[in-house]
Amino acid sequence: MLTPGSLGGVGDTGRVRRLGILLFDGVEELDAMGPWEVLSYWTSHHPADGWETRLVARDKVPVTAAKGAVLVPHAAWAPDLDLVVIPGGAGTRALMRDAGTLAWVRDLRERGALITSVCTGALVLAAAGLLAGRAATTYHASFGELLAAEPTCLPDREARWVDTGDVVTAAGVSAGIDMALHLVDRLAGRERARQVRRGIQYDPEPPV
Amino acid sequence: MLTPGSLGGVGDTGRVRRLGILLFDGVEELDAMGPWEVLSYWTSHHPADGWETRLVARDKVPVTAAKGAVLVPHAAWAPDLDLVVIPGGAGTRALMRDAGTLAWVRDLRERGALITSVCTGALVLAAAGLLAGRAATTYHASFGELLAAEPTCLPDREARWVDTGDVVTAAGVSAGIDMALHLVDRLAGRERARQVRRGIQYDPEPPV
Repeated sequence: MLTPGSLGGVGDTGRVRRLGILLFDGVEELDAMGPWEVLSYWTSHHPADGWETRLVARDKVPVTAAKGAVLVPHAAWAPDLDLVVIPGGAGTRALMRDAGTLAWVRDLRERGALITSVCTGALVLAAAGLLAGRAATTYHASFGELLAAEPTCLPDREARWVDTGDVVTAAGVSAGIDMALHLVDRLAGRERARQVRRGIQYDPEPPV
Repeated sequence: MLTPGSLGGVGDTGRVRRLGILLFDGVEELDAMGPWEVLSYWTSHHPADGWETRLVARDKVPVTAAKGAVLVPHAAWAPDLDLVVIPGGAGTRALMRDAGTLAWVRDLRERGALITSVCTGALVLAAAGLLAGRAATTYHASFGELLAAEPTCLPDREARWVDTGDVVTAAGVSAGIDMALHLVDRLAGRERARQVRRGIQYDPEPPV
């Protein structure tokens, strides 16, 4: 299994590395599908980089997301992911109390996977004990819940994402797009991340 | 049915207005799910505004999107949408040759629905004859195809989206998020659009 230190390089193990985005009932749609667009654009257009992206869930059955979209996972939980994205959404509150989910996340961490979250996905990382004494961000309205779940967490209310090496957390919903581009930059280099940004024409102009 | 002129107001018909985002095999994920997040956030948090959002498809069966995500539509094609979003993606080239899709889009237009597209969704509007003599945008690499499909179209290569009143086109992929916020602004006002932007924490910071 990959060690965190080797995550900065590309393809040095000679096998395809597995990137999984977690789906669950009540996942906020863009929390999952923003990173999916960025990461699957990268891995499908540049397979020689040695990564593949999948949507994973506890069971391989459709989930109903927070706003009602129905999404079908590609695979059930895998123990051998090299990178996992835990999106946020109302459904994270149930995950925080689900021993199976927390054990899966801890196990991935112990195996050396890079653990990332978007929005209130950080609450799941906190409940799993992964944010003890660690800088992190979450949805703008959820820092109270984050500190309740992990009082030793060091909240960063300004950052769009916080990269602490083996754990990366993003701010709310759309911040997952920025974090995912950062992950491409980190894992495959600046030029590749720019290609992906151009590919999804990510030149945002919020109109209001 | 709604007349285009009444689309600037809110709820003046006394019935719920229907907003549909089209799914199809080969739809680019973020083209559909970016607008979905914005529009479903709006309509689910503010039902009194009088709109509802659905994912629609030709048949009510799962579609496999361009990067491999599997999405389940809520409903089959509806003739009574008040606003439709046609996303882009590799699958649009098949839609451009599909008489049923083109007739459905033309029929919605004739009934007074607001017709919108993201990315290469504009190619479908062009094939349906809706962009004749009209300003429009599309994916940055697809203006040649757009002009081949509709030589009288007036391409706008700089705009993030182009609102020509009864037809609105957005640039590539992530531009659908900006266009959808513009639609909330247009249909429910500036303050509502700002609430939605804050709700999805859309303060983009592309890292590369």
